[in-house]
Amino acid sequence: MKTRAITISVILILLGFLFFLGSCKEKTKQVQSVASAAHKYPSDVIPFMDEWKILCGDGTRSEDLVNFEKKDFFYVENDGQTDWVVYKTPNSGVTSRTSSNTRTELGQKAHWIPETGGKLTGTLKVMQVSTTGDATVSSSFSTVVGQIHSDEGHENEPLKVFYKKFPGHEKGSVFWNYEINTAGSNEGRWDFSTAVWGYDFSDVGASATENPEEPQDGVALGEEFSYEVNVFEGMMYLTFTAEGHETKKFAKNLLKSDFVTKADVPEQILATYYERGRDGVERDTAYTGEIQYFKQGCYNQANGKSTKSETYGGDIAKQYANGSFAEVWFKDATVGAGTKPN
Amino acid sequence: MKTRAITISVILILLGFLFFLGSCKEKTKQVQSVASAAHKYPSDVIPFMDEWKILCGDGTRSEDLVNFEKKDFFYVENDGQTDWVVYKTPNSGVTSRTSSNTRTELGQKAHWIPETGGKLTGTLKVMQVSTTGDATVSSSFSTVVGQIHSDEGHENEPLKVFYKKFPGHEKGSVFWNYEINTAGSNEGRWDFSTAVWGYDFSDVGASATENPEEPQDGVALGEEFSYEVNVFEGMMYLTFTAEGHETKKFAKNLLKSDFVTKADVPEQILATYYERGRDGVERDTAYTGEIQYFKQGCYNQANGKSTKSETYGGDIAKQYANGSFAEVWFKDATVGAGTKPN
Repeated sequence: MKTRAITISVILILLGFLFFLGSCKEKTKQVQSVASAAHKYPSDVIPFMDEWKILCGDGTRSEDLVNFEKKDFFYVENDGQTDWVVYKTPNSGVTSRTSSNTRTELGQKAHWIPETGGKLTGTLKVMQVSTTGDATVSSSFSTVVGQIHSDEGHENEPLKVFYKKFPGHEKGSVFWNYEINTAGSNEGRWDFSTAVWGYDFSDVGASATENPEEPQDGVALGEEFSYEVNVFEGMMYLTFTAEGHETKKFAKNLLKSDFVTKADVPEQILATYYERGRDGVERDTAYTGEIQYFKQGCYNQANGKSTKSETYGGDIAKQYANGSFAEVWFKDATVGAGTKPN
Repeated sequence: MKTRAITISVILILLGFLFFLGSCKEKTKQVQSVASAAHKYPSDVIPFMDEWKILCGDGTRSEDLVNFEKKDFFYVENDGQTDWVVYKTPNSGVTSRTSSNTRTELGQKAHWIPETGGKLTGTLKVMQVSTTGDATVSSSFSTVVGQIHSDEGHENEPLKVFYKKFPGHEKGSVFWNYEINTAGSNEGRWDFSTAVWGYDFSDVGASATENPEEPQDGVALGEEFSYEVNVFEGMMYLTFTAEGHETKKFAKNLLKSDFVTKADVPEQILATYYERGRDGVERDTAYTGEIQYFKQGCYNQANGKSTKSETYGGDIAKQYANGSFAEVWFKDATVGAGTKPN
């Protein structure tokens, strides 16, 4: 009887052990599953969201982006490894006051002037650009993934970072545009474009339905790259990096124009804008003292008018189902003070 | 025997239960004690530290304040309830280029102009101001806990938020000073001071050793208060709050001077600065277009020269042991874009 009693005791103790061990584990598991099941907002992935407001492609605006999302426009996706903030917008939707292009794009709350500067960084992959458009129009098949935008005067853009991929090509191009701060009337304004990898903005098809060759050293949809825009004491320093691509660096003075006289106007501009009557020059002081802010996200350059892209009468679901949209994913981004370049 | 065996089993099960319950608890405890034992840096308490650089009262400078601390100057204290960031600095130490006062003070990396604006907030308690000094000198017994500082021209200060307490008084004063952006030579510059709670800067003792009366509605050492400095479209909006005190709000235009002619100069200034030959006026455009940045922390206004405060020959340990220092604790603070006031 004694042995049996001890045996029973031991079994019961073991059962007790297993029970409480189980209860310990269960608690740990519960905590983990709560954490992984928790819904993630863009502000959980990139913590700088309190520094921005947003305009989405359906006209949704918000000035409080902490724990904010907008289904089908601004939300978090996981690609199996990493959380990404998705910025998605159709070819036709609701646009801002100054544009006929839709955007799901952040606008920086803090403003600055070139002399005080600022820095914006981003690591992204473009997942989609419009598959339809007029190949002779520079902005077809493209989206802008970062900007410096002026908030006064002509409200021009010292910087737009583009991604563009012609339909049928595997690789697309990354380039950046500098828009002149036009002297006098802004009717004559134009963008000077510089290729980072692949083509620049001025490389277009020979006809509306003919594409140029596949670009050299291009970047595919879904391929990651990073940019840094550092404005320090009036100089704009740009750095572009991507695995398997040469790092590219550029500098542009925002306080002193390179394009003051018609003799300064680059061949690229004479062959494009000037032929169409956009024949301005820039004020000598460029963007000196003019209030600026950063933008980041997806500013779709395709629309039904200028690029003649498909819009399905503005039906967003149809546009999303048929390639008439742009979509950009960011996994990292920062905004802050400009820094002295190395 | 059967009963006894069951009794033993039950006891053993209970022991098992307690043992494993204990082990569960222990794990929880361990995690907690690791967390509470972990060393805390100022950047753990106030997460905005990546937006600032620092100058400490011993001359230590750092431009990377994440996980940075400086013993005896910039570190974390817990008062039993809350973690606070401590800013401490002696009456005599190492000073900046433009000042004879020591500081342990943050300087904002991002710069801005009044037109683009910005916002700084802080919740703090002043723990110490110098106990020695000349009671007829306005800056005796005081420290500055927040500033807007110009980075060009005269490098004057559109805003200094002061705490000052005369020795022997229980309550001190909170006031803010606006320094004119002097027209012509900066020799004639002066600060116009406005009381928040208690006295303003111009209220001094009748002689070097006589204090005025204890101020009405004053703030004690160790008593918490908050400020918000919101610069929006060139206007500076100030809000001061503290439990048990009336909330005070002020607005000052930074783009247009109130002090352009001698007739505009306030009585407060005529009776103090003007008598000593500091008889300037301000340029009409005040701080328009001038580059600014915020400062926050402890900028000790006591020194061995102008306020004739005790410095123990610059021996910091002796100063700290004998009340010849200033010390300010912050528990919350933010910096960011200016916002449209309600």
